[in-house]
Amino acid sequence: MSKSSTVTVRERPVEHVATATANGLTIHGETLIIQTDQRIELVDLTDRVMNFVRQFPVREGMVSLWSMHTTCALIINEAQKALHADITRVLEEMVDRDAEWMHNDPQHSDCDRMNADSHLRAMLLGHNLTLQISGGEVVLGQWQRILMAELDGPRARSLRIQIFGVS
Amino acid sequence: MSKSSTVTVRERPVEHVATATANGLTIHGETLIIQTDQRIELVDLTDRVMNFVRQFPVREGMVSLWSMHTTCALIINEAQKALHADITRVLEEMVDRDAEWMHNDPQHSDCDRMNADSHLRAMLLGHNLTLQISGGEVVLGQWQRILMAELDGPRARSLRIQIFGVS
Amino acid sequence: MSKSSTVTVRERPVEHVATATANGLTIHGETLIIQTDQRIELVDLTDRVMNFVRQFPVREGMVSLWSMHTTCALIINEAQKALHADITRVLEEMVDRDAEWMHNDPQHSDCDRMNADSHLRAMLLGHNLTLQISGGEVVLGQWQRILMAELDGPRARSLRIQIFGVS
Repeated sequence: MSKSSTVTVRERPVEHVATATANGLTIHGETLIIQTDQRIELVDLTDRVMNFVRQFPVREGMVSLWSMHTTCALIINEAQKALHADITRVLEEMVDRDAEWMHNDPQHSDCDRMNADSHLRAMLLGHNLTLQISGGEVVLGQWQRILMAELDGPRARSLRIQIFGVS
Repeated sequence: MSKSSTVTVRERPVEHVATATANGLTIHGETLIIQTDQRIELVDLTDRVMNFVRQFPVREGMVSLWSMHTTCALIINEAQKALHADITRVLEEMVDRDAEWMHNDPQHSDCDRMNADSHLRAMLLGHNLTLQISGGEVVLGQWQRILMAELDGPRARSLRIQIFGVS
Repeated sequence: MSKSSTVTVRERPVEHVATATANGLTIHGETLIIQTDQRIELVDLTDRVMNFVRQFPVREGMVSLWSMHTTCALIINEAQKALHADITRVLEEMVDRDAEWMHNDPQHSDCDRMNADSHLRAMLLGHNLTLQISGGEVVLGQWQRILMAELDGPRARSLRIQIFGVS
């Protein structure tokens, strides 16, 4: 490894929309673009995911959400302004933006975003949610919301959503 | 967003038991209720999950566990009293229960559980495990146990378990 | 629970290779062995996972990676030497190796590895990744790499990889 980060290259880029079916099983993936406005921001994707799932003839199955970025995470929590401020605060306290991270040091890194904190915070939250579908709808508790955690915005973020199940 | 948290509403509630099959593929979901006794407690669900999986004609596949709560997480770790005390300690040290969290402040939040710490700790652990099934049994290492982390008990907690695979 | 950790016992051990098919659906699992050299080390598995997936007639689906160990985690992040040093540093700062953990105390634990820190750090990172497959290849963003986080090496580590999808 050098000062540069390794680039991941597929033989062909992911298609915006891809579908496969096999004897009653449906698999369908799409790319979602989410625009963020702040450096750290929680975006509630619950309604979008629930509406996506309702479009397909899938009664029982799974739906996977994947952040295509290293500095943008996916979590479950409540959607409440006060709690979202607390989430931002705890991330800022757990990983100090201004510590002398090597990723922010031009001697060791060719990244000019100075975003080591964003990488480290995303690592603690995770980049993927694999949810269940039952009765044609996403399985979520009453207070559970699907939140995208922007940790180095504002940016246009790509998420991949994939439904997988039977009717 | 207001002082209240957004409520997630399905068109119809999750059925306690739901099954779908398609040409050799079985998908089956159920709700498990787990009663906890302490505010913070780790409950070992391994035997329950392993026995659940053995009931179905699924040789290769997956089993998903989903906590229906924001303040109750699912993790993999050893089941040992000493380590569980250490897990409680590290969670208490990483997220201070008594800090002035906005979620606990009636000026900003209508939640009367004063449980910001529980939300923040659960966020760090995660609410879902997606395990592999092979040879008709759950794939786990010798020391791996499936643990439910109660972070705001005692409560009756709902988990959703879903098996997905072929015989 | 005693000073010992509970052992997880399947009726039969996981087979090194296992396959099932059902009307166009392929499920295939294998065990990978990864040798590590340091106590804390990040191993880039991206090319290995991408090449594994390309072997199978799966156009749309999922691939699951499961660490068979409690002290070895799986994460997504960039592969860059500087950032990997930062990841090690943040883990060491968040969970102090030399604190008086009960898991390291012979009065409370029969584990002689003195590795409470490894257990606690792995818990924060997670033991599983469930990735999407689309167009016959793993779905990853340009800077995303699949990293195994060794937290108590050097060791030979077992991972289980399972592909699940249709052609």
